[in-house]
Amino acid sequence: MPRVVVDVMPKPEILDPQGKAVLGALPRLGFSGVTDVRQGKRFELEVVGEVTPAVLAEVEKMAGTLLSNPVIENFAVHVEESE
Amino acid sequence: MPRVVVDVMPKPEILDPQGKAVLGALPRLGFSGVTDVRQGKRFELEVVGEVTPAVLAEVEKMAGTLLSNPVIENFAVHVEESE
Repeated sequence: MPRVVVDVMPKPEILDPQGKAVLGALPRLGFSGVTDVRQGKRFELEVVGEVTPAVLAEVEKMAGTLLSNPVIENFAVHVEESE
Repeated sequence: MPRVVVDVMPKPEILDPQGKAVLGALPRLGFSGVTDVRQGKRFELEVVGEVTPAVLAEVEKMAGTLLSNPVIENFAVHVEESE
């Protein structure tokens, strides 16, 4: 069954305190080599029937109104085969 | 520059109140056709140099210890070309 995924990330110019907290914790846990971390959200939506272009357009609208804040976040919609 | 992405999702058997809240809000906003929503986290990591199998193994370790709670969450690591 296909599944529609919406990835929501803070815009590059927006401060991301959660990502910074993770970045700061990595060396303390013995990890090195990571220069930046950004934390965002991932939504997995199960839809009825086929994922048509109309369904994707509908999900784009959901992503822009409910799932993300377009002032501070970017989103990307794509389809994934679910296991 | 390549970027390593870690997707963290609640396990299927774990209740996901955030996803349920989104699912409940969709019809009120005039959206239909979505039968389930799961909400998780997405981390984008910038790493130094090439993304070698060793780097990916290191990121898998980070994902399992710092970025996710393996009791209630699954994670997936993959590489993406950043824009």
